[in-house]
Amino acid sequence: MSPQHRIPPQPDTHRPGLFTTGAPVTSWTVSTALPVRYDVRFVPDVLSPDNPALAEAGARRADGGRRRRLLVVEATVHDLYGQRIHAYCAAQGLDYRLHVLPAHERVKTMDPVFEVAGQMDRFGLSRRGEPVLAIGGGVLTDVVGLACSLYRRSTPFVRVPTTLIGLVDAGVGAKTGVNFGRHKNRLGTYHPAAETLLDPSFLATLDTRHIGNGLAEILKIGLIKDRGLFELLDQVGERLLTTRFQHPAAAEVLARSVQGMLEELQPNLWEHTLERSMDYGHSFSPTLEMRALPELLHGEAVCVDMALTTLLARRRGLLDADQAARVLAVMRRLGLPVWHRLLEPDLLRDALTDTVRHRDGRQRLPLPAGIGAGVFVDDLTPRELAQASRELRAAAGVLTPAQQAA
Amino acid sequence: MSPQHRIPPQPDTHRPGLFTTGAPVTSWTVSTALPVRYDVRFVPDVLSPDNPALAEAGARRADGGRRRRLLVVEATVHDLYGQRIHAYCAAQGLDYRLHVLPAHERVKTMDPVFEVAGQMDRFGLSRRGEPVLAIGGGVLTDVVGLACSLYRRSTPFVRVPTTLIGLVDAGVGAKTGVNFGRHKNRLGTYHPAAETLLDPSFLATLDTRHIGNGLAEILKIGLIKDRGLFELLDQVGERLLTTRFQHPAAAEVLARSVQGMLEELQPNLWEHTLERSMDYGHSFSPTLEMRALPELLHGEAVCVDMALTTLLARRRGLLDADQAARVLAVMRRLGLPVWHRLLEPDLLRDALTDTVRHRDGRQRLPLPAGIGAGVFVDDLTPRELAQASRELRAAAGVLTPAQQAA
Repeated sequence: MSPQHRIPPQPDTHRPGLFTTGAPVTSWTVSTALPVRYDVRFVPDVLSPDNPALAEAGARRADGGRRRRLLVVEATVHDLYGQRIHAYCAAQGLDYRLHVLPAHERVKTMDPVFEVAGQMDRFGLSRRGEPVLAIGGGVLTDVVGLACSLYRRSTPFVRVPTTLIGLVDAGVGAKTGVNFGRHKNRLGTYHPAAETLLDPSFLATLDTRHIGNGLAEILKIGLIKDRGLFELLDQVGERLLTTRFQHPAAAEVLARSVQGMLEELQPNLWEHTLERSMDYGHSFSPTLEMRALPELLHGEAVCVDMALTTLLARRRGLLDADQAARVLAVMRRLGLPVWHRLLEPDLLRDALTDTVRHRDGRQRLPLPAGIGAGVFVDDLTPRELAQASRELRAAAGVLTPAQQAA
Repeated sequence: MSPQHRIPPQPDTHRPGLFTTGAPVTSWTVSTALPVRYDVRFVPDVLSPDNPALAEAGARRADGGRRRRLLVVEATVHDLYGQRIHAYCAAQGLDYRLHVLPAHERVKTMDPVFEVAGQMDRFGLSRRGEPVLAIGGGVLTDVVGLACSLYRRSTPFVRVPTTLIGLVDAGVGAKTGVNFGRHKNRLGTYHPAAETLLDPSFLATLDTRHIGNGLAEILKIGLIKDRGLFELLDQVGERLLTTRFQHPAAAEVLARSVQGMLEELQPNLWEHTLERSMDYGHSFSPTLEMRALPELLHGEAVCVDMALTTLLARRRGLLDADQAARVLAVMRRLGLPVWHRLLEPDLLRDALTDTVRHRDGRQRLPLPAGIGAGVFVDDLTPRELAQASRELRAAAGVLTPAQQAA
């Protein structure tokens, strides 16, 4: 006979019990909790053939000989690192398949999610013991994360972010998602990678504009909760940009960003609290980013939002004119936009309406209070917004239509 | 000034701290838990205009005047109950929109999920306070549940199952899902409805075949863990079928089924344990159901699987010939199939391969041990399967090709 595990029968089996005498139960409350635990760690030289970190990431300790892996690699990353990735898998003795997936904001839809799920099917993934390895930027890790979340209602995966925004933002949280309709990340899940391996050496091949894209999210953390990080960016931000983070201060800036992000996420991973300081810069930018698509990168739209809300905060006396000017100056030095022509009353109204829905009926708008701290407000008026927007246009040195006509 | 909630700054703001002296932190472990709580309860006459249960279900206590609701109603249910649903919403003073959605196994794909998400967008749902009301069978509640799970990464919903399989199975658990490729429920999430309201009066308009469909899942619970429930089905199953559960024993059979199901689900809602007694009848049936589509209803495929595994168990001496004969006799009296022409070695092999992947590399196959109890086995052989399948064909009175030719 085979090894068997008995299924315990109902206590009332074979005799009249709870249900066969008296009234049947007619209501139940199911109460339980899902434990979630995941690791985020710096792993320099993650593709070094003798570094077992990636080959072992996300696997159970007792896996033994089972080392089948499906890799999903972003197309540009594959162009640059494909050979090293294949060499790594061979050196580590993985039985693997590598799927190349182009990933950027315009194709961040369910189509690539289905493509990844189809690859998982064809590879014949076992349910729990063969994590998918996602190597690429934030769009790629969001898309692969959603596919893994949906496939058999959750399959483990491992993230190796290759962009700055992936390293400090998309790659370290729990959210997956794709755009839907005209809305950013409207469909998604909370499904963190079992492990995220951060290797800043990928940044050496990233273009400057995408470094700026990530610097915007780092600046967000500095502005709203970590003045020391802001000071660092003020001092070395330009050097980080031009050296693509191959600079002595890079480790501290990255670690401080990840730390700041995770401090906010851990107690609120499923966003039961909708007052989230990490939403700073994300009140008007989702609508701006989608309407301007493909013109603005995510971090660029976030920076325009932060510039606007910096002026809103200044109007309310939450920071002074010098602080506001300093914030805008740092944004410019990081190569980030502080204004966009679509930032007009109509867009601001629509964006606020959608954000209020997203925050369940209230604005819950984070504003900076000085540099490195913030407050949430619920009473922003359209007039304040229009005034701040006009001021920002002037501060950005953009001509009004009337000025242009003159 | 507005009501404000301060965002606490980093402890090390304004002064050298953890990160500015010494080595930066380079690894983090995020550890937390998602609490989940949901209610399942019988609500007779749920559409009675003076019954507030549905209008209030899933809403927070302090909602006050906010009573906006999007209803998604299965097309056949709408034909039969549409007027009553509109009258109910009007009587309860809901500000509502009703979307009609055809839902059956062949259209259980992501397309209707997108359709529902689009409706949520157009209705302008607030994030947490306006639960979607899903009224229909198991396919409808699975599809709406997935849409709600994905929309803004989770929107509350309420289920009102209108079929027997919805009342005892799809409607009371936590799973959502759609078919993908050739696989049943391959994409989905765990996202239970905040409340499920069970009203057996809907069964009065269900056709007999769909009553049988649900009886198969009830029989499953009887066979694998609740002998008393099996005895009840043996005694009154046919009457439940012909009266469409408008019978004095209906309440006990339904309550006992829901109880049996929830006892198994609560400690294992996210299937961390893959040895699930509720998987009984679901080892070969997912492949059979999908390949036979649209011929077999879900419960019919499950019943064929249970008939096969009953004979497997008898071959192993887990139940005796009389018990096996009695099980097959009850299946027949409930109008359920015990054999299907596709149940050949090729299909059985493919089904077992996929099930082993789904159970993470092991068979973990539930088999009955007597009636009302079970065991899990890991060592089923293709030969045993082929023998049991031949025996089942003979027991079902189906002629072999050789016999047909004779």
